[in-house]
Amino acid sequence: MNTVSLKCSEIATAIGAELRGDGDAVVTSIASIGTATAGSITFVTGKKFVAALRASAATAVILPDAFSNETSAIRLVMENPYLGYAKLTGLWSAELYGTAVTGVHDLASVASSAALSVGVSVAQHAVVASGARLAENVSVGAGAYIGEGVSIGAGTLIHPNVTILRDCSIGCDSEIHSGAVVGADGFGFAPAPDGWEKIHQLGAVVIGDRVSIGACTTVDRGALEDTVISDGVILDNHIQVAHNVVIGRNTAIAGCTGIAGSTAIGANCRIGGAVSIVGHITICDDVLITANSFVNRSVVQPGSYSSGFPLETSAQWRKNAVRLQRLDEISRQVGKLKS
Amino acid sequence: MNTVSLKCSEIATAIGAELRGDGDAVVTSIASIGTATAGSITFVTGKKFVAALRASAATAVILPDAFSNETSAIRLVMENPYLGYAKLTGLWSAELYGTAVTGVHDLASVASSAALSVGVSVAQHAVVASGARLAENVSVGAGAYIGEGVSIGAGTLIHPNVTILRDCSIGCDSEIHSGAVVGADGFGFAPAPDGWEKIHQLGAVVIGDRVSIGACTTVDRGALEDTVISDGVILDNHIQVAHNVVIGRNTAIAGCTGIAGSTAIGANCRIGGAVSIVGHITICDDVLITANSFVNRSVVQPGSYSSGFPLETSAQWRKNAVRLQRLDEISRQVGKLKS
Amino acid sequence: MNTVSLKCSEIATAIGAELRGDGDAVVTSIASIGTATAGSITFVTGKKFVAALRASAATAVILPDAFSNETSAIRLVMENPYLGYAKLTGLWSAELYGTAVTGVHDLASVASSAALSVGVSVAQHAVVASGARLAENVSVGAGAYIGEGVSIGAGTLIHPNVTILRDCSIGCDSEIHSGAVVGADGFGFAPAPDGWEKIHQLGAVVIGDRVSIGACTTVDRGALEDTVISDGVILDNHIQVAHNVVIGRNTAIAGCTGIAGSTAIGANCRIGGAVSIVGHITICDDVLITANSFVNRSVVQPGSYSSGFPLETSAQWRKNAVRLQRLDEISRQVGKLKS
Repeated sequence: MNTVSLKCSEIATAIGAELRGDGDAVVTSIASIGTATAGSITFVTGKKFVAALRASAATAVILPDAFSNETSAIRLVMENPYLGYAKLTGLWSAELYGTAVTGVHDLASVASSAALSVGVSVAQHAVVASGARLAENVSVGAGAYIGEGVSIGAGTLIHPNVTILRDCSIGCDSEIHSGAVVGADGFGFAPAPDGWEKIHQLGAVVIGDRVSIGACTTVDRGALEDTVISDGVILDNHIQVAHNVVIGRNTAIAGCTGIAGSTAIGANCRIGGAVSIVGHITICDDVLITANSFVNRSVVQPGSYSSGFPLETSAQWRKNAVRLQRLDEISRQVGKLKS
Repeated sequence: MNTVSLKCSEIATAIGAELRGDGDAVVTSIASIGTATAGSITFVTGKKFVAALRASAATAVILPDAFSNETSAIRLVMENPYLGYAKLTGLWSAELYGTAVTGVHDLASVASSAALSVGVSVAQHAVVASGARLAENVSVGAGAYIGEGVSIGAGTLIHPNVTILRDCSIGCDSEIHSGAVVGADGFGFAPAPDGWEKIHQLGAVVIGDRVSIGACTTVDRGALEDTVISDGVILDNHIQVAHNVVIGRNTAIAGCTGIAGSTAIGANCRIGGAVSIVGHITICDDVLITANSFVNRSVVQPGSYSSGFPLETSAQWRKNAVRLQRLDEISRQVGKLKS
Repeated sequence: MNTVSLKCSEIATAIGAELRGDGDAVVTSIASIGTATAGSITFVTGKKFVAALRASAATAVILPDAFSNETSAIRLVMENPYLGYAKLTGLWSAELYGTAVTGVHDLASVASSAALSVGVSVAQHAVVASGARLAENVSVGAGAYIGEGVSIGAGTLIHPNVTILRDCSIGCDSEIHSGAVVGADGFGFAPAPDGWEKIHQLGAVVIGDRVSIGACTTVDRGALEDTVISDGVILDNHIQVAHNVVIGRNTAIAGCTGIAGSTAIGANCRIGGAVSIVGHITICDDVLITANSFVNRSVVQPGSYSSGFPLETSAQWRKNAVRLQRLDEISRQVGKLKS
């Protein structure tokens, strides 16, 4: 792996911080405040890290003005040091991995009717099918499949072994991680006398700008209309987005969450991991759902929602679980006792 | 994307409906009753849509005889309009996407000992390994892997980036969506003095006719005997079917459900999303399990079953969850109060 | 499929059992005690199978000394017959499938700077990127992607369509099943005024020796430090291991379980299927977590832990679920009645 050396002045400029200290000093690693050593740059986001800040041998620290006097390190002062850290990782990553190779690899398969803009890269064993359009600097990883008529906006990264099926569209500066499948058929079947009759899924998937789709996440195409993932949405791994779901701007969803068909989720929601959300409901904007919840109804008020049986010893759980199955009866007994 | 124009008379014939109105009239889109406009064909399945039917500008409607007088649109009358809609989507899809290209792509890899019937297509970067047999009109998508000795029945579609491992068999007219893995090793290990000893999985997976396997769904091969998915079973995305599971005819399972090893599920069951089903149990025919349930025991009577903690505000949940952990004690207090 | 014929004496030697009976007798199938017939070898692990043992027509049985007199079959006597069975399946599998072909397939893509040791195989449409190192007898399946700088230890099997991203390392004698993704970016984003700012994930994934990773399981790379899977860990399918998780030696985790970021799980734990484990907690060594539990706090004592709402009829569940949402109130009523 390459190594990185960056001057504090370069970093301050790139992340939008005010430099206090020697801008020519060089850092060669990023570390959390607990593990930073000489040569590291670190960051401090709140009061609880001030003791560690005082003790730290880090060369440089991204921090808010309030803690600027708590260290003799080089300071990169900004209101939101966590955002500064995020921007720093982008700078670091670019240094570490260099500029991506562009161009279509000899072992890729690109249809003659596909339209590739400048700076596009298509890696080995990837397929870009007929009528697909890849805008500037789109990168398609090895083994990825880009179906007929798919449109991908500028700067979007498609990682190895991703599958994007026909006629789906993805905006700019988005990222789809390995193993993800966009545009597989929604789970639509009509009961027929002899089993199930498939409802062919005639909609597509429309994904906005600056969207992140995690590894092995699936977003199904719509039945008649499209499944929609709005700008700025971030989806972790192993998420199931069923057909005709709509997810609003900047909503974040953690891993292993499933969203059943035709549910609409608002903007700026934060949904924890392993949440299951039933179909045909609406969740309004600015809703927080904690991990492992079962969303069995619409949510019409912003706020924090939860469900789930907390962990116990198995012995205690067995006792409580038996009672839980009799809870209605117990409750009625309490009612009688009261009266 | 292509466009579709179909005469109402063609549609009526194809879906088995009785035509009432101008059979030469052409429709160019399918829409739900709420969004249909002139040029659309729509469908009405029940009383609650009759008001929308009356107001609709749709050119044609698939509906039961009972509502035939509620509209001036062209009527395609049949007992089960939802089934008619399903058949219509198949017709539409064929018009929209045309006939699939057949033949083995230059960039595919097909073993000389594989047997391919007429009409088979194998796309770029797909592999068909030695001894595999693909019957008439099987389609293998780009990047898919068909292992040694795999057998696939006529008309079955294997989408891009599917993996089917050695000696598994799949029936006719089935469909395996992208990212699915059929025949990976079951999770079998024996405790050994120094860790775990792998139990090599010597069975395979046997999948019937008209089966649908969703994106990123996994069906593991059996330990000694086979894992079995019967005819007509439909599995959504992200489902885990562990080794030696048996699923009966026409059972439908929604996304994110996991079924542990050696469990047998009957025919005509409907299992919701995000259900977890423990191993070594039996679920009889005609069982409905609602979403997010924990199936921790066998089910021996047809009917509807559920479990799961419904959604609350986080504040309320915290209070209730604390009590839940003391439920056995509360219940015993109630018992004492009664006596 | 090939057939297998093995002499009982060969098997006894291979699995470390004491042979009692005709070592030249040949078996041609492995079966469980309930289905074994003449020509089969089977195994008996405990008292509850002794009646079946007495009735069995199996040619040979792996069993403990205690049951050696309960059968006239050829006996392969050892303390841990289940371990013997596991070893037997390995022997059987080697006979059945023969020796793997080695070498780099013409349709593979191996960077000139990759280092491949003797006995390595790379199948069709696989990619081994620059700087990757594959030790002796590593097998890379069709369509698999091995990223830049990845290191894989001797004897490790990478199945078809696996994705291993840059700079990750995997030890010896490990196995990664199809559809798994190792080293995708962890889900790290900082809130920014206009949405989310990606935190580029600069750590990698470090996987030990004798690790098994199931189909469609994802192990994300760390933010600054690495995500770590220790020696002997076995992970089933559809598991999510988020960034900076650490899993201790020989821990076993069943399918569909999700582990959120920075959680540390000890050694020798057994975690059931569909468990959700929140982030930033610690689970000590020797913890058992039953299926479908919600691990919402650290576990600091070895033992068995559970949670989850057991299955009921839907009618009963609806009643109990309503009461559950009022449990705090019910509990307070009981408190008042007591006083």
